Amino acid sequence: VRAIVFDGRAATVQTRSDPQPGPDEALVRVRLAGICATDLEIVRGYTEHRGILGHEMVGEVQACASAPAWMGRRVAVEINAACGECDRCRRGHPTHCAHRTVMGIRARDGCFAEHVAVPVRSLHAVPDAVPDEAAVFTEPLAAALRVLEDIAPVPHGRVVVLGDGRLGLLVAMALHAHGCGVVARGRHAHKLERLHALGIATELAASPSEALGEADVVVECTGSAAGLDDALALVRPRGTIVLKSTFAARPVLDTNRIVVDEIRLVGSRCGPFADALADLASGRVDPRPLLEARYPLAEGDRALAHAGRRGALKIVLEP
Amino acid sequence: VRAIVFDGRAATVQTRSDPQPGPDEALVRVRLAGICATDLEIVRGYTEHRGILGHEMVGEVQACASAPAWMGRRVAVEINAACGECDRCRRGHPTHCAHRTVMGIRARDGCFAEHVAVPVRSLHAVPDAVPDEAAVFTEPLAAALRVLEDIAPVPHGRVVVLGDGRLGLLVAMALHAHGCGVVARGRHAHKLERLHALGIATELAASPSEALGEADVVVECTGSAAGLDDALALVRPRGTIVLKSTFAARPVLDTNRIVVDEIRLVGSRCGPFADALADLASGRVDPRPLLEARYPLAEGDRALAHAGRRGALKIVLEP
Repeated sequence: VRAIVFDGRAATVQTRSDPQPGPDEALVRVRLAGICATDLEIVRGYTEHRGILGHEMVGEVQACASAPAWMGRRVAVEINAACGECDRCRRGHPTHCAHRTVMGIRARDGCFAEHVAVPVRSLHAVPDAVPDEAAVFTEPLAAALRVLEDIAPVPHGRVVVLGDGRLGLLVAMALHAHGCGVVARGRHAHKLERLHALGIATELAASPSEALGEADVVVECTGSAAGLDDALALVRPRGTIVLKSTFAARPVLDTNRIVVDEIRLVGSRCGPFADALADLASGRVDPRPLLEARYPLAEGDRALAHAGRRGALKIVLEP
Repeated sequence: VRAIVFDGRAATVQTRSDPQPGPDEALVRVRLAGICATDLEIVRGYTEHRGILGHEMVGEVQACASAPAWMGRRVAVEINAACGECDRCRRGHPTHCAHRTVMGIRARDGCFAEHVAVPVRSLHAVPDAVPDEAAVFTEPLAAALRVLEDIAPVPHGRVVVLGDGRLGLLVAMALHAHGCGVVARGRHAHKLERLHALGIATELAASPSEALGEADVVVECTGSAAGLDDALALVRPRGTIVLKSTFAARPVLDTNRIVVDEIRLVGSRCGPFADALADLASGRVDPRPLLEARYPLAEGDRALAHAGRRGALKIVLEP
């Protein structure tokens, strides 16, 4: 297969031997794959992953010996492949399986390829009503919906989403769609306008916030250490900060503020695929306005460069 | 009154004019007052507080014009005096009132004095069954019980309490008494033995922990920035860290660990006085083994020096 491979130094388009699905795996033809900040971090060398990149995709099952009913189905694919047997899996937290591999992120090849072999139990059928251009957002939308679980029940007050990158915009859209009083705060007027068009309140980060010390929830999606300071300035006593983005820098934390104001800080990662697909099927969330450009897989280097540009929205690959 | 006063440089025993209770205040004769790490921090200059120190006490109402039924009653006294009218008070969070004063901590004289004037609504009657030596622990026990609210419902798994200072020991006792599977981890074998005698599992901090990466809850009571790193090493994915102690240093935080392992970090401060008094009255928690020495108020400087010694337990003043 043709694929975008990271060898520890650079990501390049290469031809690799075809993936061979194991006994409980399916072979999936990739229809569209999305580029995420995590892919760019891997290329910058922030993790140990080597091999084929990519973990956001929609595809079509081409071989599935153990469960033939999947043949020909359009699917989104859960990225964490769990062992199903360890303590954490038994507790119902497969995304925290101690032995997990993660598609395109940890010890498992990713979906920036013509085909990918994935565990059958990672497959989610994509409803016919959901076009590929929306289905490719299933994984990031699930991650956005994880925030709803973190802050459940839906808070009455103000929810500030910090950061207008790909993830921040999607989180703002998802929380707004589920009844949160969202204020999206970011640096790019042209991106905030896309949210404004959906009826979501926005604030430019250069201007003082109306939520200073008054936000019930702040969702940190800036991808920078400074975002945590901003979040602490915005949140009210006994409020919640959801940390969504990972970054290389280690921020210095005002723990006294956290103790005295009894603030909750919640790390948030992967979310419910089924809920994401339901929202896409009903149209409750339509992420397509976030799609900025499509590239053939052969132009993977150009696509990654585009995704890395300041202000870029979602870039997808067509294998 | 005779009182221990901090003038910005040193804490000294002085004679001050008698406190004049306002219309909604009571005059309370202090029977016993406890010395807390926060008092020592104030004397080290970490806060803006100037005036009479002290916020842990049991006393006797000597004047109460607006509510004469309190006359002669033995009382514990809520330390946060809230306005009762701001947004935060209306939400039911008077301990976070934006206009609050705090006895001995913020813009209100403390209880290291023969008498103190306090709001009538801050009074809690001490049941007859509770001797002064236990009642003086009402405020720190309430703060310990706040952790139960932070982690409710009582977790099934392992709860590690980090730090065997006054607060850590009391938190371990309170959580154990309420059914948590506590492991107390600290540096002083002679202090951990007091917990062991109560049937609480203990670990010396010098030895490797059995909870590494497996604790459901870690309560950080070490009073040092390094405690947060230890807490992160101990807690399991999706586990909770309760931050109980404040300190001058600002720790560097591994936010990626928090995000990837979806850890919750919860700041925790003041707690429910009524619950603390109920536990003292029933004997569910008996904090008296933590009492190390009593000093007359006139020897306040010696008492503070004793409380500041490494390994010291609770020191109380008798005005």
